Amino acid sequence: MIGIYNQNELEVQEIIFYGLYALQHRGQESAGIAVTDGSSITYHKGMGLAADVFDEKTLERLKGGKAGIGHIRNTRAGERMYANAQPLVTRYKKGSMALVHDGKLVNAHLIRNDLEEAGAIFQTSMDIEVIAALIAKYIDLGLEEALKKLISVIKGAYALMIMTEDRLIAVRDPLGIRPLVLGILDDSYVIASETCAFDTIGAEYIRDVKPGEILIVNEDGLTSIQTPVPLHSSLCIFEFVYYARTDSTIDGISVYMARKQAGARLASEHPAEADLVIGVPDSGTTAAIGYAEASGIPYGEGFIKNRYVGRTFIRSSPHIREQGVRIKLNALRRIVKGKRIVVIDDSIVRGTTSKKIVEMLRLAGAIEVHMRISSPPVRFPCHYGIDIDTSDQLIGYHNDVDEICNIIGADSLGYLSLEGLMKTVEGSGCGFCRGCFSAEYPIEPEK
Amino acid sequence: MIGIYNQNELEVQEIIFYGLYALQHRGQESAGIAVTDGSSITYHKGMGLAADVFDEKTLERLKGGKAGIGHIRNTRAGERMYANAQPLVTRYKKGSMALVHDGKLVNAHLIRNDLEEAGAIFQTSMDIEVIAALIAKYIDLGLEEALKKLISVIKGAYALMIMTEDRLIAVRDPLGIRPLVLGILDDSYVIASETCAFDTIGAEYIRDVKPGEILIVNEDGLTSIQTPVPLHSSLCIFEFVYYARTDSTIDGISVYMARKQAGARLASEHPAEADLVIGVPDSGTTAAIGYAEASGIPYGEGFIKNRYVGRTFIRSSPHIREQGVRIKLNALRRIVKGKRIVVIDDSIVRGTTSKKIVEMLRLAGAIEVHMRISSPPVRFPCHYGIDIDTSDQLIGYHNDVDEICNIIGADSLGYLSLEGLMKTVEGSGCGFCRGCFSAEYPIEPEK
Amino acid sequence: MIGIYNQNELEVQEIIFYGLYALQHRGQESAGIAVTDGSSITYHKGMGLAADVFDEKTLERLKGGKAGIGHIRNTRAGERMYANAQPLVTRYKKGSMALVHDGKLVNAHLIRNDLEEAGAIFQTSMDIEVIAALIAKYIDLGLEEALKKLISVIKGAYALMIMTEDRLIAVRDPLGIRPLVLGILDDSYVIASETCAFDTIGAEYIRDVKPGEILIVNEDGLTSIQTPVPLHSSLCIFEFVYYARTDSTIDGISVYMARKQAGARLASEHPAEADLVIGVPDSGTTAAIGYAEASGIPYGEGFIKNRYVGRTFIRSSPHIREQGVRIKLNALRRIVKGKRIVVIDDSIVRGTTSKKIVEMLRLAGAIEVHMRISSPPVRFPCHYGIDIDTSDQLIGYHNDVDEICNIIGADSLGYLSLEGLMKTVEGSGCGFCRGCFSAEYPIEPEK
Amino acid sequence: MIGIYNQNELEVQEIIFYGLYALQHRGQESAGIAVTDGSSITYHKGMGLAADVFDEKTLERLKGGKAGIGHIRNTRAGERMYANAQPLVTRYKKGSMALVHDGKLVNAHLIRNDLEEAGAIFQTSMDIEVIAALIAKYIDLGLEEALKKLISVIKGAYALMIMTEDRLIAVRDPLGIRPLVLGILDDSYVIASETCAFDTIGAEYIRDVKPGEILIVNEDGLTSIQTPVPLHSSLCIFEFVYYARTDSTIDGISVYMARKQAGARLASEHPAEADLVIGVPDSGTTAAIGYAEASGIPYGEGFIKNRYVGRTFIRSSPHIREQGVRIKLNALRRIVKGKRIVVIDDSIVRGTTSKKIVEMLRLAGAIEVHMRISSPPVRFPCHYGIDIDTSDQLIGYHNDVDEICNIIGADSLGYLSLEGLMKTVEGSGCGFCRGCFSAEYPIEPEK
Repeated sequence: MIGIYNQNELEVQEIIFYGLYALQHRGQESAGIAVTDGSSITYHKGMGLAADVFDEKTLERLKGGKAGIGHIRNTRAGERMYANAQPLVTRYKKGSMALVHDGKLVNAHLIRNDLEEAGAIFQTSMDIEVIAALIAKYIDLGLEEALKKLISVIKGAYALMIMTEDRLIAVRDPLGIRPLVLGILDDSYVIASETCAFDTIGAEYIRDVKPGEILIVNEDGLTSIQTPVPLHSSLCIFEFVYYARTDSTIDGISVYMARKQAGARLASEHPAEADLVIGVPDSGTTAAIGYAEASGIPYGEGFIKNRYVGRTFIRSSPHIREQGVRIKLNALRRIVKGKRIVVIDDSIVRGTTSKKIVEMLRLAGAIEVHMRISSPPVRFPCHYGIDIDTSDQLIGYHNDVDEICNIIGADSLGYLSLEGLMKTVEGSGCGFCRGCFSAEYPIEPEK
Repeated sequence: MIGIYNQNELEVQEIIFYGLYALQHRGQESAGIAVTDGSSITYHKGMGLAADVFDEKTLERLKGGKAGIGHIRNTRAGERMYANAQPLVTRYKKGSMALVHDGKLVNAHLIRNDLEEAGAIFQTSMDIEVIAALIAKYIDLGLEEALKKLISVIKGAYALMIMTEDRLIAVRDPLGIRPLVLGILDDSYVIASETCAFDTIGAEYIRDVKPGEILIVNEDGLTSIQTPVPLHSSLCIFEFVYYARTDSTIDGISVYMARKQAGARLASEHPAEADLVIGVPDSGTTAAIGYAEASGIPYGEGFIKNRYVGRTFIRSSPHIREQGVRIKLNALRRIVKGKRIVVIDDSIVRGTTSKKIVEMLRLAGAIEVHMRISSPPVRFPCHYGIDIDTSDQLIGYHNDVDEICNIIGADSLGYLSLEGLMKTVEGSGCGFCRGCFSAEYPIEPEK
Repeated sequence: MIGIYNQNELEVQEIIFYGLYALQHRGQESAGIAVTDGSSITYHKGMGLAADVFDEKTLERLKGGKAGIGHIRNTRAGERMYANAQPLVTRYKKGSMALVHDGKLVNAHLIRNDLEEAGAIFQTSMDIEVIAALIAKYIDLGLEEALKKLISVIKGAYALMIMTEDRLIAVRDPLGIRPLVLGILDDSYVIASETCAFDTIGAEYIRDVKPGEILIVNEDGLTSIQTPVPLHSSLCIFEFVYYARTDSTIDGISVYMARKQAGARLASEHPAEADLVIGVPDSGTTAAIGYAEASGIPYGEGFIKNRYVGRTFIRSSPHIREQGVRIKLNALRRIVKGKRIVVIDDSIVRGTTSKKIVEMLRLAGAIEVHMRISSPPVRFPCHYGIDIDTSDQLIGYHNDVDEICNIIGADSLGYLSLEGLMKTVEGSGCGFCRGCFSAEYPIEPEK
Repeated sequence: MIGIYNQNELEVQEIIFYGLYALQHRGQESAGIAVTDGSSITYHKGMGLAADVFDEKTLERLKGGKAGIGHIRNTRAGERMYANAQPLVTRYKKGSMALVHDGKLVNAHLIRNDLEEAGAIFQTSMDIEVIAALIAKYIDLGLEEALKKLISVIKGAYALMIMTEDRLIAVRDPLGIRPLVLGILDDSYVIASETCAFDTIGAEYIRDVKPGEILIVNEDGLTSIQTPVPLHSSLCIFEFVYYARTDSTIDGISVYMARKQAGARLASEHPAEADLVIGVPDSGTTAAIGYAEASGIPYGEGFIKNRYVGRTFIRSSPHIREQGVRIKLNALRRIVKGKRIVVIDDSIVRGTTSKKIVEMLRLAGAIEVHMRISSPPVRFPCHYGIDIDTSDQLIGYHNDVDEICNIIGADSLGYLSLEGLMKTVEGSGCGFCRGCFSAEYPIEPEK
């Protein structure tokens, strides 16, 4: 998600579109943009990638924005519908607001029940509708107090932006679970999920929004309100492992450097006698380079990825289904054949892809396949918005490392230790949520 | 709008689709269908005609309905957006409901303000969202009491259907302004705006829903609750003049017979020395037949209408713009030429079409053009959902009959008197709203 | 089809679009427009109605036309594909040409075989591609001679337009089977299938293109070349019965007058003791008015047609399929009930619709249903482009009138005699093809 | 392009679809598939990527294929239109055929003129239509002789497939300019442009089709006919430089190995004092790895590419336009900053992208930028189908290496020598066309 408060005659709708485009890896289900001309809010949203939802005509209709926000939404099973696209635009007693949200509340259902008990109706299944209802409920306290009250009531992971007719508001949850960054484009403040959006639109990164911080941008500039936070923050470590784009920087840590270092540490934790280090594109590449450098084993491209990987796949006949991952990736026979291969991936979730990867390498003539994973086994669900919903489907929940090695058919398997992973981000000065690895959750889901 | 409670293994989604198709004249902006399988509600809606919004694939997804409701929405300036398509599907403390609504409340904005003051948020500009919020607010009273309370609070014109997971509810406003009819298909109750929907789907008409009546259909059958009503009902007379389909019957009165009789009365109120009576397709045809029969002047088709009148017109060059109405209608030179023509239309709103009609007839060689209108001059806005929003644009507000005759360029002009019009529906036993003709409104819009 | 040679800064593409729109009843399968800017030809075509194929953007791309032609194509089973959309645009030794064609050749397959034998390839199954190949073959003779040669070689029904970079050519077959008319818009010549297109675009009708006539329009004006013709022409009588639009005039005869007169003659040939005359919309209406006038029996609207009859229908469940025609038409119970009805249709092809019509009237309470058809029984296939392909499916081929009456369930059935039908067009001075009624074909299909 | 002759109950349409998907890098303008059921040919084609043109519904219609061919087409300015999508399906005297073609003839216009002189018409601007016309012209000689005659007449680069109702034919031009490979899937022969398609669909590579070879596959198996060829073949060297997918093998040479070796040779030809070697994604990556390995300078990812690079870009405001390449690529500040960078790209065509790349690296803090190109300067147009149309736009035509270095703003610039490049493919035993580097063309374009 991305928002901008326009002080420079910028084409707000276009900047947001390209910002969403840069953040597309964070969600592919739906995209939407809302703009305000200072007195009223207009929006467009739809299912699919930003580039599918918007064209010149739809962007044209959003011209003239004094401020704007955009959102791309992550797919979660069973919720794929237009009603759940963001921004949510609502009217309330003070006028209108558009809201976008990354993350997941752990007590949304409870608040929703309370509000329903008090007579409220809900038209979507999104946390953001609960948030909008709370703001409307508290707004008589004044905007600032209403936001503080909101923060005291909702629990969980949220990076949140709210646009009213004349201001842009950003809120990061007190634990700082989801990232949120502040930048500037000419004299216009921009707020986004990751710094890669700033690079794409030409904005300068200023700083990360702080856990528990409320930022309000309007005609007069930027106001920051700090609300109480726990002693330690809990930035999602999985952002570094997989979720964020390699060229982003989160809370001071370069994702690229963290991933490369994870590879290097992996090399010392789990060395291998091998001829070549390769990565699984795209997310294993950086760690593979780190592993190669640290181990002295040459780095090579073992897989070529189809550049045109499409979104809509065809229900296939059994023949094609067997081909599976091979439609997206192809092992390079000539460089793999006859070699002992170290192959690096960022994580193993279900294990099905890893199994295919090993098979492909063997078919391509690899004589040994040593799988190395640049993070610990994913063993527990995420309660804060990453799509790892239940332990059941996690190969790491049911099996120990040897069993997993056996299932995927590798000659050896090594995971980076949690300590090793934490070392890669140690300069950050912030705390981390590592719930999916250790079940230590900074905040429990409420029943 | 149409709803059905399925007791016969019917394809609910398909019956509703064809029902909407029959009711398409009541609105062309958006279409939607919601069904319940007994425990949860699914829906699909979109912009455009029913035949544009639904295809086999979208209907397939709505299969298996225990009950269903559908809606087609009338265009009103400035509100053309997806968010305003119906059914509105909401969750509330007791589960889910889908709602559809024809008409317009006169105090929705006041209730909305009150609800907003109490902290509610609104995502659409539709009355139906206010109604949903009120039901949720009162639901602790029990469903029946909540509906009675609802009826006591909302004012204006409404034919309303509500579907919960396991029942179908229909409500007609105490004044009976908008029509609503009850029918049966095999053993399944059907409720619709007009009887023409019943004929299309093969259902039998039972009776009109009564003003102030609440109908609840569930597994056990039909329950009727009568709420207090004023002494006289106020069925919209414009339904007979223009809005309803000619083959429908409303509150016992055949629209066809009313229109034909309007033509006959017009012949005696405003006779003409003429050679041929023609109607403006489609809505003037029936009255023209009545006029011809009563006057003894032969009836003929003076205009041919393009059967493929499309929805999407092209921004035209001046040359084509001048052609105007002629793209839809063409005067039949051979039968018009050299004749004195009586041309019947159902009403004159802005006067621009009438002017073109007269021009076309003169160009086609008519030597005299006598315009006759089968209703009185429309002089006042409608507060109950017919799209006549302000007096300003009404030619009948600013001008008397002679002036209008002059503006449209006819040789003579005669409107049916209000008394004459009322005679055409006198057998109904119900009262009528004639606000657009006389400014006598059964219920005043609230400020 | 329609073509224009622009001498007046007209928006050629727009005029052709609206012309096609007026001619849409002649074909709904595909639509296309080609324009020349004087030196090169651009085109756009696609499947569906003109209003589906063209929008502002596609028309914009066709701006700046010095001349243009457009076509809408009739559906014929098994040929529904993009490749068969017209205009056909080809390059040949002298440059480019765009061609459109109405009708059907009886020797296209033979010529095609000959050309294939000589090495030609064909990319469509259209006659027009054969015609284009012949023009290219003969073009060394010069354009005029090539066209004369073409006319001497191709046999059958054809109204043909050819646009080169700098001229517009129209050809009507020597028998004059398909209609073609010449008009003028300001100083620009227009050629179209029917005069209703002229009315819609504001052009003046000049005259019909003559059988065997070649018209060439270029910068210098209009040239007419008359090629040899048989003694009697053979205009398709079915154009008057059903195919042409009621407001068109063909070879001097008003379609409306012919249809109305057919109704009147039918009244004297097949009188009925009845209370009401009604027509099957839309094509039976005019004859019904004629029948009523001649018989003295009152005319009424017995059916209401859904104004939004869509193109894409849904594969229905048995319940809905039974409803059949009723989805498009609804009988008006109130005016039909208890009456002896004369119902007029233009023709009976398979008989299935007529059967439903009779059923609907009985269900609506008609005590007698007398079906009258304003043309003779259709008993033979058409070889010239009307979609009556084989005798097999024709109810009139297998059954005599009494049997048909029995099958459709009417109380009586009367067809207009062929003599009676011919009387309705006797003023025209041209001969007629009546093959579908009498098997007298002006030119036999070649084997 | 890809073709298959089905001996194994394979889903031909699906295999071809995934084959096209693997070959998508060879063209993004249009896609098409034709199949034969043994007696008739069906096809579907459209504008855009294979995944845009085909979905389950369109593929369903192509089921049951005994053989099939598919094509994706390269964009060339001014020819972007549906008519130019392949396969071309034509009827000719012996029945039907579907044709696809990669490459470009140098005498197509002359043959086309001759055929037009003889009366032929052409509906597209594609070479393949000329080829189809020639086959039809010569077919009386019998298929084999017709193909031999075809090969003797057409000149230039062509990899060609022809499917008749009952056989699949592949032809590679006598110079072997464009690649073409033969494989087998179960017992079914497959022919494709590159081996990566075989890997994707699970087929085994057999061998390359030989220059001047005709392959005919039918029910009885495979027939090979060798036509006369010049002493030296002329495989396009640019396939190795840029065009082919890295995981393909052409005429025995692994594209990956050639690219990596090019990087290694570049390191010795143009060493650099630097801290990091990076590649421009995707095509510079492999050579960068080779350069790093050979030079001992560490390899790193300097750029992150947006994984969702879309097809339809929005006409941007000046602000966004300046961002240019950055929307697709982002330099990794953290690893580039303060370093002396060697950046490898495969070629420089216009120079605009290279300039942006250098700028981005400097903005990201690189202290020196040494551009290295893994091929010689592109100085001449390609006459055989690669989209380098005129020398005019080639930065290498107007400028020497120093000037180019200056224009793009690098600290140093080094191109791989032609000798060096040729070394990377020396094991192939085939000759190469190096026209774009040296203007030595194996066959001159005819005037």
